[in-house]
Amino acid sequence: MIDILLSNVVLDGAVCDVAIENGLFSSVAGKITAPAAKVIDCKGRYAITPAFYNTHTHHAMTLLRGYADDLELFDWLNNHIWPAEALLTEEDVYAGARLAILEMIKSGTVFFNDSYWHPRATAKAAVEMGVKAEIGLLYLSIADGSTLKNEQNEALLDMADELPARVRISHSPHAIYTVSTERLRRAAEDAASDGRRIHIHAAETSKEFEDCMKEHNATPIAYLNLLGVLTPKTILAHCVHLTDDDRRIIAETGAVIAHNPVSNQKLCSGIFDWKRASEAGCCITIGTDGCSSNNNLSMFDEMKCAALSAKVSSMDPKCGKAEDILRAATVTAANAFGFKSGVISEGYEADALLIDLERADMVGDYNLISNLVYSASGDAVDSVICGGRLLMEHRIVPGEAEIIASAREVCRKISRSVKQ
Amino acid sequence: MIDILLSNVVLDGAVCDVAIENGLFSSVAGKITAPAAKVIDCKGRYAITPAFYNTHTHHAMTLLRGYADDLELFDWLNNHIWPAEALLTEEDVYAGARLAILEMIKSGTVFFNDSYWHPRATAKAAVEMGVKAEIGLLYLSIADGSTLKNEQNEALLDMADELPARVRISHSPHAIYTVSTERLRRAAEDAASDGRRIHIHAAETSKEFEDCMKEHNATPIAYLNLLGVLTPKTILAHCVHLTDDDRRIIAETGAVIAHNPVSNQKLCSGIFDWKRASEAGCCITIGTDGCSSNNNLSMFDEMKCAALSAKVSSMDPKCGKAEDILRAATVTAANAFGFKSGVISEGYEADALLIDLERADMVGDYNLISNLVYSASGDAVDSVICGGRLLMEHRIVPGEAEIIASAREVCRKISRSVKQ
Repeated sequence: MIDILLSNVVLDGAVCDVAIENGLFSSVAGKITAPAAKVIDCKGRYAITPAFYNTHTHHAMTLLRGYADDLELFDWLNNHIWPAEALLTEEDVYAGARLAILEMIKSGTVFFNDSYWHPRATAKAAVEMGVKAEIGLLYLSIADGSTLKNEQNEALLDMADELPARVRISHSPHAIYTVSTERLRRAAEDAASDGRRIHIHAAETSKEFEDCMKEHNATPIAYLNLLGVLTPKTILAHCVHLTDDDRRIIAETGAVIAHNPVSNQKLCSGIFDWKRASEAGCCITIGTDGCSSNNNLSMFDEMKCAALSAKVSSMDPKCGKAEDILRAATVTAANAFGFKSGVISEGYEADALLIDLERADMVGDYNLISNLVYSASGDAVDSVICGGRLLMEHRIVPGEAEIIASAREVCRKISRSVKQ
Repeated sequence: MIDILLSNVVLDGAVCDVAIENGLFSSVAGKITAPAAKVIDCKGRYAITPAFYNTHTHHAMTLLRGYADDLELFDWLNNHIWPAEALLTEEDVYAGARLAILEMIKSGTVFFNDSYWHPRATAKAAVEMGVKAEIGLLYLSIADGSTLKNEQNEALLDMADELPARVRISHSPHAIYTVSTERLRRAAEDAASDGRRIHIHAAETSKEFEDCMKEHNATPIAYLNLLGVLTPKTILAHCVHLTDDDRRIIAETGAVIAHNPVSNQKLCSGIFDWKRASEAGCCITIGTDGCSSNNNLSMFDEMKCAALSAKVSSMDPKCGKAEDILRAATVTAANAFGFKSGVISEGYEADALLIDLERADMVGDYNLISNLVYSASGDAVDSVICGGRLLMEHRIVPGEAEIIASAREVCRKISRSVKQ
């Protein structure tokens, strides 16, 4: 029996039926007449498209959305973000992660790659709410090479056996300037032996680049490569400050770039060179970063910003084409994380969006991909399917009001505690 | 009798009642008990904020949304946009303008400053749909100084006496490279005598700047100033390529900049220098430009892009603060166009939005302005009031389906005629 039948849905410009069974697209055909447990009639209204995969985020930072903006990096971190984060309990992180997952579902994202405190809480939220995720074991070393907050990582590892296949654990050394050489090398060894991915901030700021050159006589990317960190299972967040050699190394090792255009502009890190990186053959995906440097989790905002910054930074309007941007936000990212998804086709994991075409901002309707990248917002997403499960139907996500209310409670606590 | 009473609405962080009468905010108080023709109870859900004023657009280009993207400027204009535009009848422009006005209302904008073919059709749509607008008499001169399509301008002028005060007519010479020196001078004289504003593209591309230097031995801004074009009633769209002297001239003459960050990046025109322009004391407002170079009319997208590009282009995270960006998109623009609006206060024209606070992307809720600029999308706008009239209530704009359908019809015609 078909689990979900999407009838009369627009797929690549043509109307068809799409059947989902056991988490996979089981049939894509002109007309499917087999019985289905659930039918959504899309006639004259909805198109089906791949869902989004957000490859770099700190989900629970939704709790700090708008808490401190428009500040110098040092002031922002030291006087605002870190003091607020110090207050967060595991329960708070759980509330923030649930809010983030609600927001990502409402804007069409089915996967997030996370690195944050209390990772067990974020994993729990992902498991409960039905999305795909990789949750990092967070490493922040001190001088002697030992890891802070190790008990939080242990808590995540303790639940490893209970996790569904869609929620995985990665190694997430924070960055080269917060993790010792020894700990980075060990993360690479651990990843090689346990098969987990590595998720790290890399080449984000010019200060990181210059300090690395001084300390290691190598660029951040070359340094990470020397330590054995770069493989196709490594996610490099930001990559704003790269040399031609760095791009060659990334392409050759198959490491994956998580491009964060909004965060990089908001924090004045710089502008990622989309043109050179794609010409060098790098694998480019897109992430929102956390909500205190964005300030949302919308892959629509992120795609538009990625396309615009690719163009103006190269002064080439043909760079960052809508179809290239959409691919980076969907199938490229899905594949980079080992999911056989990102494509609406038989045998693929059933991750998909129903897009509402009856919106003013979706007309002219010459080119759906262009409309998705340049015009649409998250509210154009009518329904979200992840691994064959309907996470949002006609804009309704179960439990929304309660999720918002409990996150608000944490925000009140932060307001009371810090702003005194 | 109060026309509209907004009860229990959040204004600047406090809960109050707001009364609207005869198009104005008649009272803002803790509790208003006078009878009202219409009451909207906002309790626990809505905040009231100023509405947006879009200071540069070509509204009917919604018909060309996504029609041709990611192309070189010359190829884009000559082989795609102009052939498609040549097909547009006055009726088509009417359909496109109605679609645009629907889109702008749905994303919280109550005013647009337009320049396009068949301006009478756009004015008619604005009158019917209840928004504020300035519609340009379009001047595109040929060598002898005569104006093309003059009959279209005459048609607009013929309806001048019937227009409500909220819909005005401006002089819109297209640009210095498409309008003769003589015609520009005459536009300045006409504006001086009839009191209308001038709306012109200025200093958009480096080619325009360089050609002007060669031909007139002056920058575009200096040239326009020499011709008497620059006054506080002049709207300069783009202003990407400015010298320090240009910024001084703009500030001294009081001319108004319409900043279009998305379009400037998409077309690779460059990045407007927000920091230098604001330090020079220029009046800065924000516009979306037309939908073929954006590709939407969302002032939310435009504000976020304005803030981000201000920061990264100056490498100063304190530049383009949320409150400065929001002011440019609201009260600064309203005042520049002579409306006593943009502020929720007694005696001001009742232009306002109800913002839905019960959305995932509006929590943390420390700072509504930050959330509006960096996180929200158009769908956070629940209701729109323009001049005391409710244009959208709880996301419903009357006639929406018909407006979308008739615009789609025109898109079909363009597809059939051009893509053969």
